[in-house]
Amino acid sequence: MTACTFCRIARGEAPAYIVYRDGSVIAFLDKAPLTKGHTLVTTIEHYENILEIPDKLLGDVINVVKKVAKAQLEGLGAQGVRVVQNNGSLAGQVIFHIHFHVIPFYLNERPSRGLLSSHEGEEISKILREQIGD
Amino acid sequence: MTACTFCRIARGEAPAYIVYRDGSVIAFLDKAPLTKGHTLVTTIEHYENILEIPDKLLGDVINVVKKVAKAQLEGLGAQGVRVVQNNGSLAGQVIFHIHFHVIPFYLNERPSRGLLSSHEGEEISKILREQIGD
Repeated sequence: MTACTFCRIARGEAPAYIVYRDGSVIAFLDKAPLTKGHTLVTTIEHYENILEIPDKLLGDVINVVKKVAKAQLEGLGAQGVRVVQNNGSLAGQVIFHIHFHVIPFYLNERPSRGLLSSHEGEEISKILREQIGD
Repeated sequence: MTACTFCRIARGEAPAYIVYRDGSVIAFLDKAPLTKGHTLVTTIEHYENILEIPDKLLGDVINVVKKVAKAQLEGLGAQGVRVVQNNGSLAGQVIFHIHFHVIPFYLNERPSRGLLSSHEGEEISKILREQIGD
């Protein structure tokens, strides 16, 4: 057992609302979303930051970010998407396992961090999974 | 001639402090940096956003982001790096040609937008170019 939350989610040892998963990349809803559908895209293997992750895997991860952004725009009705990836605590990294935030923006919703309810988690992750699966 | 600033920089028709260039990706200093060494990584061909850019090229772009981040940490003494990519004006996109902001963070410098001087531009881009070239 590891202390890394994202490793635990990737191994199914900690709960998360999964949006996408393949052999090397996983995406799930942020448990304290800035807006509806705020998603984290990360690796199944543990790498601390953008310097550590292998080049090929980094390319795979950013293409899952692209899939999630498309699903937010087309499935959730977002009008914009911001992608953020922090390296080092000074830059705002909190979990030391590389991840990209994919944050949808809406005309009628100001970004404001709040806890995700189980109802929202189930509903939103289902929409995004189905959209990505199309 | 096009109205797109980044296309003009890519073609050498508009000035910029170039940090990196290959056949498909270019990186240059932001002219209004948030911190010392704030760099933009973009494509030579015009694509508006993360939905439009081809998958392979997106992988190439993010690996140039990785090179720039490494150079900021190792060449400029940054202690953290934030990567930001905005899609749509609602998410903060201003130039509608896909680009990643690569923003170094320093213990002794708070992010604060200011115009890049030619002295800083020459000095900082030289350090980053040499670091990436290593």
